[in-house]
Amino acid sequence: MNNTNIPLYQFLYEEIKTEILNNEYKKGSKLESVRSLAKKRLISTTTVEKAYNQLLIEGYIKSVPRSGYFVLDVITPDISSFNNLVEPLVYKTYINNKLTTDLFDIKSYKRIVNKVINYDYEKLYTECDPRGELELREEIRKFIFEERNVKCDVNQIVIGTGIQNLLNILLDFTNKSSVTYLSPEFKKAMSVFRTFNYLLLPKNDIEEITNTKTDFLYISPSNTYPLGDIIKVKDRNDLIKWARSNNTYIIEDDYNFFIRYNSYTIPSIHSYDNGENVIYMGSFAKMLIPSIRISFMVLPISLYNIYKDTYRKNSQGVSKLDQLSLALFMKEGLFKRHTKKLYAQYKEKNEAIKKFLLKYSSNDLFTIQGSDSNLHLVLDFKTLKSLNQFTRNCENLSFEYQKIENKRSLIFPYSGIEINDIQEVIKRLLHEV
Amino acid sequence: MNNTNIPLYQFLYEEIKTEILNNEYKKGSKLESVRSLAKKRLISTTTVEKAYNQLLIEGYIKSVPRSGYFVLDVITPDISSFNNLVEPLVYKTYINNKLTTDLFDIKSYKRIVNKVINYDYEKLYTECDPRGELELREEIRKFIFEERNVKCDVNQIVIGTGIQNLLNILLDFTNKSSVTYLSPEFKKAMSVFRTFNYLLLPKNDIEEITNTKTDFLYISPSNTYPLGDIIKVKDRNDLIKWARSNNTYIIEDDYNFFIRYNSYTIPSIHSYDNGENVIYMGSFAKMLIPSIRISFMVLPISLYNIYKDTYRKNSQGVSKLDQLSLALFMKEGLFKRHTKKLYAQYKEKNEAIKKFLLKYSSNDLFTIQGSDSNLHLVLDFKTLKSLNQFTRNCENLSFEYQKIENKRSLIFPYSGIEINDIQEVIKRLLHEV
Repeated sequence: MNNTNIPLYQFLYEEIKTEILNNEYKKGSKLESVRSLAKKRLISTTTVEKAYNQLLIEGYIKSVPRSGYFVLDVITPDISSFNNLVEPLVYKTYINNKLTTDLFDIKSYKRIVNKVINYDYEKLYTECDPRGELELREEIRKFIFEERNVKCDVNQIVIGTGIQNLLNILLDFTNKSSVTYLSPEFKKAMSVFRTFNYLLLPKNDIEEITNTKTDFLYISPSNTYPLGDIIKVKDRNDLIKWARSNNTYIIEDDYNFFIRYNSYTIPSIHSYDNGENVIYMGSFAKMLIPSIRISFMVLPISLYNIYKDTYRKNSQGVSKLDQLSLALFMKEGLFKRHTKKLYAQYKEKNEAIKKFLLKYSSNDLFTIQGSDSNLHLVLDFKTLKSLNQFTRNCENLSFEYQKIENKRSLIFPYSGIEINDIQEVIKRLLHEV
Repeated sequence: MNNTNIPLYQFLYEEIKTEILNNEYKKGSKLESVRSLAKKRLISTTTVEKAYNQLLIEGYIKSVPRSGYFVLDVITPDISSFNNLVEPLVYKTYINNKLTTDLFDIKSYKRIVNKVINYDYEKLYTECDPRGELELREEIRKFIFEERNVKCDVNQIVIGTGIQNLLNILLDFTNKSSVTYLSPEFKKAMSVFRTFNYLLLPKNDIEEITNTKTDFLYISPSNTYPLGDIIKVKDRNDLIKWARSNNTYIIEDDYNFFIRYNSYTIPSIHSYDNGENVIYMGSFAKMLIPSIRISFMVLPISLYNIYKDTYRKNSQGVSKLDQLSLALFMKEGLFKRHTKKLYAQYKEKNEAIKKFLLKYSSNDLFTIQGSDSNLHLVLDFKTLKSLNQFTRNCENLSFEYQKIENKRSLIFPYSGIEINDIQEVIKRLLHEV
């Protein structure tokens, strides 16, 4: 509320309100009549009426017909003065976990965004379809069919801001109660199951899983976390058979499927039973830029038939501008071109990282694991001392890492390190290790 | 997978895989050696090795050192042919509930988006701050201080895709169990409390509320749903005192605060105790365009001190491009200009709707309620017959409406009807009512 352009009635309202709050009126006392106050102040009766009306609406005075306005009893609780000594919290962006800026063709993306704003702007004036925009779901349908042999109807696809958001929607309408998964867990997903009070059943291998009775299995069969191991075809078949005979749904979190350095991409488990018992989930997080958060899931027809009666309950969180832009980005073939470039650079970095890790360390310091996929390595240290020195070096360089529980291992992401810096970075990370 | 550019090894891999799946090898039988197959097919040994490696990774064959590759037992479950006969589900956008396209200055917004992409694109390459971007939180801080006298530090502000998303975050880290509210409930909010297994305590008035023991009160004191009634100052004071002495948090959902046609905007309840016991929530949904989904909440310092240790658990769902664009839109004063224009048009529509409703209906058909605020009216019909005819007319015109339980009333939104169409629309809606 700045002081210019404030209407006169509001000044009057503020004045009387302050007087009431300062107990300058007795409770129940009558306010001066509209006509009399207007005359005294040389203002219009309309102005006084408006001020009184505002006091009336907020409950500072009451109106008694044919009698006038009376002050109500208003005792405001003590208010502490605002204390803005909040301990600040700085969100740290780690260099090694971002996308290097030379990768994304931001100019093409800007052109696409402008196209949407210029030609599709009418669509921006209506609410989002709670399932996501049809244009984007259709592009996703084509994409996952081509790349992952996931066959589905566009109606089975639901868009969300991330795996957590999609799980929220899924658990909300399915109303189930237990989930199994290979430990270690994918924390962000499991926290949603915890929120829904699920019984969590961590298991160590596929055999243990297929001996479990559960509503859901959460798994990344083409890229288990964090080592990127692959669930072999025999185990996949066992999982499908087990899911069918137990009415279990397999949630396939197919993250980073396109990043495989020494083999062709591994088929989705969805393609093993045409998704009768598989909920397929994917994300564009690592394929685009991290600031655009778009994920999607494919519901089996049996679940779609429940979902379609309740989907209006959840609002769509992904911005429509982002949805329509990505749809056009995909339709015009720019997305395919981008992921190709991206993959080539990831591969180059992966090789450089491994090369320099081996070059600057002695043999018995650690073993490198999980380097065939993903954008991180797992380093398995021989001694706690080496591990600790390495993490200290990470912290000094402001690099992100994640320790693995009960192991002398850590997960080290590298996608954000510029290719030309890798040698120097590795040297420094291995300093005195 | 299109057929151009597919590497040779992949053809070989597909061929052998198909043979294995068609049982053309006996279980355990040995594959031809790499060298021998390469010679027979006139291809390089590398190509054969790559194909065998892919089969190995996926688990179709196993490798026995110094002996060769052997076929594993792989019985794939029957797969139904994909049935794409999904009952399609068309999301209906109702004309009367959108934003009319002449309102939003899409050109300025495009200029802002381009500015962000041109000058701030480096920020787009890093992950979002889980609380929302600092630039936007700072603009929100200034905005709610100016408009709603909400005093807070920028660190207390959390951004989300909507009230549901913010409630998810809030309920997740606070770990409480009961909520009270004035019935009728705001359904989308209450569904989140239900998800978290909350005890729901609907009440009819403030006195009932202040006799309740509960963790949260969910309320819109400046605009109760759906009639837009205002909680008077005495009741507000009682609520603050009650909240303080019971360790209750008041969730103030301050939606549409800026839309008041016959009075000045009503103060936030947050300003009554500087937010010690009030969680302030707001949304840009009706102030911008509905496709940009940005909401925010202000945490009391007591809750902020819990939140700051767990905030990394939740990913930020709002696109960073949208966040940075809105921040700049606000900073450059375009937002203020826009909401002013918006408010003027809402007011004009509100008056036209009321005028024509009265013109084309007889006196005893219905009463108009809740018309002093919001973008809807509540029509209270005298007879069920009139109500039913009105809703039939709504359906014929593809207009959205919402019935109020146990009453002959309905909520009718009007923001999407063009000002010049209002007379004709009302005529048709009242046809034979």
